[in-house]
Amino acid sequence: MSKSNHKLSIIPLGGLGEIGKNMTAYQYGNDIVVVDAGLKFPEEDMLGIDVVIPDVTYLVENKNRVRGIVLTHGHEDHIGGLPYVLKHINVPVYGTRLTLGLVEAKLREHNLLDVTKLVTVTNRSQIKLGQFLVSFFHTNHSIPDTVGIALECPEGICVHTGDFKFDFTPVDGRMADYHKLAELGERGVLCLLSDSTNAERPGYTMSERVVGQTIDDVFRQAEKRIILATFASNIHRIQQVIDAAERYGRKVSVVGRSMVNNINIAVELGYLRVNKGTMVDPDDIAKLPAHKVVILSTGSQGEPMSALTRMARATHRKVEIVPGDTVIVAASPIPGNEKDIARTIDQLFRIGANVIYQQVSGVHVSGHGSQEELKLMLNLVRPKYFIPVHGEFRMLKIHSELAQATGVPEDRIFILDNGDVMEFQGGEARQAGKVTAGAVLIDGLGVGDVGNIVLRDRKLLSQDGILVVVVTMSKQDGTILSGPDIISRGFVYVRESEALLEEANRIVTVTLKKLVAENVSEWSSIKTGVRDALGRFLYEQTRRRPMILPIIMEV
Amino acid sequence: MSKSNHKLSIIPLGGLGEIGKNMTAYQYGNDIVVVDAGLKFPEEDMLGIDVVIPDVTYLVENKNRVRGIVLTHGHEDHIGGLPYVLKHINVPVYGTRLTLGLVEAKLREHNLLDVTKLVTVTNRSQIKLGQFLVSFFHTNHSIPDTVGIALECPEGICVHTGDFKFDFTPVDGRMADYHKLAELGERGVLCLLSDSTNAERPGYTMSERVVGQTIDDVFRQAEKRIILATFASNIHRIQQVIDAAERYGRKVSVVGRSMVNNINIAVELGYLRVNKGTMVDPDDIAKLPAHKVVILSTGSQGEPMSALTRMARATHRKVEIVPGDTVIVAASPIPGNEKDIARTIDQLFRIGANVIYQQVSGVHVSGHGSQEELKLMLNLVRPKYFIPVHGEFRMLKIHSELAQATGVPEDRIFILDNGDVMEFQGGEARQAGKVTAGAVLIDGLGVGDVGNIVLRDRKLLSQDGILVVVVTMSKQDGTILSGPDIISRGFVYVRESEALLEEANRIVTVTLKKLVAENVSEWSSIKTGVRDALGRFLYEQTRRRPMILPIIMEV
Repeated sequence: MSKSNHKLSIIPLGGLGEIGKNMTAYQYGNDIVVVDAGLKFPEEDMLGIDVVIPDVTYLVENKNRVRGIVLTHGHEDHIGGLPYVLKHINVPVYGTRLTLGLVEAKLREHNLLDVTKLVTVTNRSQIKLGQFLVSFFHTNHSIPDTVGIALECPEGICVHTGDFKFDFTPVDGRMADYHKLAELGERGVLCLLSDSTNAERPGYTMSERVVGQTIDDVFRQAEKRIILATFASNIHRIQQVIDAAERYGRKVSVVGRSMVNNINIAVELGYLRVNKGTMVDPDDIAKLPAHKVVILSTGSQGEPMSALTRMARATHRKVEIVPGDTVIVAASPIPGNEKDIARTIDQLFRIGANVIYQQVSGVHVSGHGSQEELKLMLNLVRPKYFIPVHGEFRMLKIHSELAQATGVPEDRIFILDNGDVMEFQGGEARQAGKVTAGAVLIDGLGVGDVGNIVLRDRKLLSQDGILVVVVTMSKQDGTILSGPDIISRGFVYVRESEALLEEANRIVTVTLKKLVAENVSEWSSIKTGVRDALGRFLYEQTRRRPMILPIIMEV
Repeated sequence: MSKSNHKLSIIPLGGLGEIGKNMTAYQYGNDIVVVDAGLKFPEEDMLGIDVVIPDVTYLVENKNRVRGIVLTHGHEDHIGGLPYVLKHINVPVYGTRLTLGLVEAKLREHNLLDVTKLVTVTNRSQIKLGQFLVSFFHTNHSIPDTVGIALECPEGICVHTGDFKFDFTPVDGRMADYHKLAELGERGVLCLLSDSTNAERPGYTMSERVVGQTIDDVFRQAEKRIILATFASNIHRIQQVIDAAERYGRKVSVVGRSMVNNINIAVELGYLRVNKGTMVDPDDIAKLPAHKVVILSTGSQGEPMSALTRMARATHRKVEIVPGDTVIVAASPIPGNEKDIARTIDQLFRIGANVIYQQVSGVHVSGHGSQEELKLMLNLVRPKYFIPVHGEFRMLKIHSELAQATGVPEDRIFILDNGDVMEFQGGEARQAGKVTAGAVLIDGLGVGDVGNIVLRDRKLLSQDGILVVVVTMSKQDGTILSGPDIISRGFVYVRESEALLEEANRIVTVTLKKLVAENVSEWSSIKTGVRDALGRFLYEQTRRRPMILPIIMEV
């Protein structure tokens, strides 16, 4: 550590105090290495927003220092922000084969593939990014080819776990790199940044193989078709479905765009073993007897436009779910999706399908480690300092208590917010101010053009609708030449509220005439007068507060 | 049964295929008895709606036959629709003391108390409503004074459980009326309608006393203030908090309007035992040492305006939560509230409170019986026919499988929708058509004036906002006298999108001139032309589809 001339800074740009849009910057002198570039899905109050990405102002301001973006795995909350970030800072991207396979598809869509340098790494790679030596260790997670990252600089070694669990019997046989973690711990780790997603859960997370056993049970008993919905990126689970299909002599058909894409990439890159003749086109299912068919589908979160939801509602182009089908929803709800999933499962019950889902049976295990696994990571790495990442505040807090239980002193644990800067120098750590950080909202093609005012208006509009009041007035004397006309949307059912709207019209007319008679000539005062009078009347009559938009045309 | 000259009809008007707005009509000849009149809270897609009640068209059409409304207990999903129903059909309402205490408060708000006949019943009452003899049996639930109902008519006996669990060690010592249920079963029950809310849960629901033990543990260890949030109607839990406070020498203060109201009613009616001097005004808390204080609060669902949320955000008028406070959130999330609760708990962690919540510790048990309790009910009542009620479809389906397991033949179990009519005659049952049933949406003072069109508009407005395009044209020759003006709300942040809106304006002007030049004179065609051209342009530029409202003023 005595060789260190510069400060090491760790700056989380996303993923702290939240689930999603994970991104962390490591800076030593003039070198910045970024780990992950995720997105997250909008909160309920972000009406109309498609996705949310980290604010990367700090990276853009320091773009000449950024040496590369290093990825832990191919989930959207770790790679989904890449296209938006790469538009501003064109740097090389490092990741394992499957991760980059998924990144390629994404960059192709955004016309960024040709201009981006992608570098494949393995858990044996060592890459030099400025003064950082970056290496990798394999972990277990709900997508193959997941790695954690070790970043070494003159100030010391940082270990960044990414999402992980310890699955002692992984489906692909690839154990986590316990020995490498132990070796790092032995050499001395300055700071550990570790996944807090499941910090609230006691015990161990079950092995993915448990799901395989449940799947096998279902295959052994099902007499007609089997439809299984899960996350499209959970290649291990998909492998277990394909294995079971081959074992029980069923053909596998795939529906749902992301499921088709991910399976294609995984097969192409060798992450999915499929025998010749196992796969069958959805168009050909009808030719097979029911007990010879498995359908792999998207829609495990009850998404209204997903394949499962459409099959359940008989609006899917190719497949319809029928009585006697066995449907496995192999996922747990992502918070916020509970009601959508319940609706889909209800619909499947109504059809007469035999439904197997989380509430009732073990068809899903988490991809994140529970408390004992988090402690095992802490025990292996034995960090001097600890920063819990990937989680809402309470998860970070509970993770910090777990760290204390393993012997990390409380004053060496830092619960940070996005944008906080942790500085390390001479082995000492301190919080050193803040950089710009936050959420950038994406709506359609617009990046950051929807802010609080627009969202507030959408919220207002969604609650009680809008009334537009238009009137044409004479420039000379303020007489009303046309109108007032009142047009409403989302307020009341017009045909049943004619009397109300007529009275509203009368009130606007009276108010306008009064204001003109009082020689009020400022349009803004007239508009305020109309808005107040009409708003008061409508609230009295309906207890609603629609947005009121007075428009005065001058002729 | 041979004495029966008429048909008995059972008509669920709410609570089937859904959680909430429970209401069932029992009809024999010219006599209708209604059990419960609940409301439910709106689904996410019912934007701006306050509450949802059952469509009671059938009862209004038969208002001269309705002999009374009989209530099982005082929860909103069983009594919340009463004020709306009583406005249309003024009939006597029967319920236990606490239930009617809560009903009174509700009717007072709606100015209906003086015109409604309320009749108090106990589990020993027998009331004659037309040809129905109605009696009651005590059950356990998360509010005291809950009863199930037996309705006897010449065709036979129906048992309607209402919400229930079997708590073998209830906090108030009032056991369920096992003997009465056994006696009914012995006499022979024609049809059982039973609560399906927890039909998905294996085993037994824990006794409310378990929560009492957890509360005691917390009281023994907490060194500073204790704040406990739970459902305001869970008087047994509130009793356990008060008992613990008295045991450990703490004063109890109550915040949150519904908590204050419910506790006042419960104390007044003798359902809550409180020693003199235990209660203290929130204004006086500051004078007490922290270890002498307990605060009972609303907000266990993370409702943004509730006392707990406001105390956590330091926006409550009287109480602020401070580091070292112990906060117990003694509730599980009602589906849909998960994210609000998580946000509140996160905020409490941020403050530095010691938070005890569902995910981590046993501070809540359900008020509904799990599978074994549902089977016990079936075993006691031994019904000839079975109709699962109170639940989404999958819960009804699973409950029907439980009934089969206890020996009810599949062809004597009916899974119904709201409005379905079950007819019984000579001991035989059949489904006999449908009556009007469904959901009536209430928004402010409006009952039923918000329908699909209004909701669809609110949805559209909430996603991408609105653009209003106004232009004043000459009646004579269609020349543009003023405008076009474009005003947007909830679409883009206007100051950053000036170029876009200017171009939009140009496109509208060009389109208008072109249409006028082509002698298009129908306003509706001109509006459609403008809407299409502008919509296409905006979608190309932004991938958004705001509502476009063209308004043409004639002068």
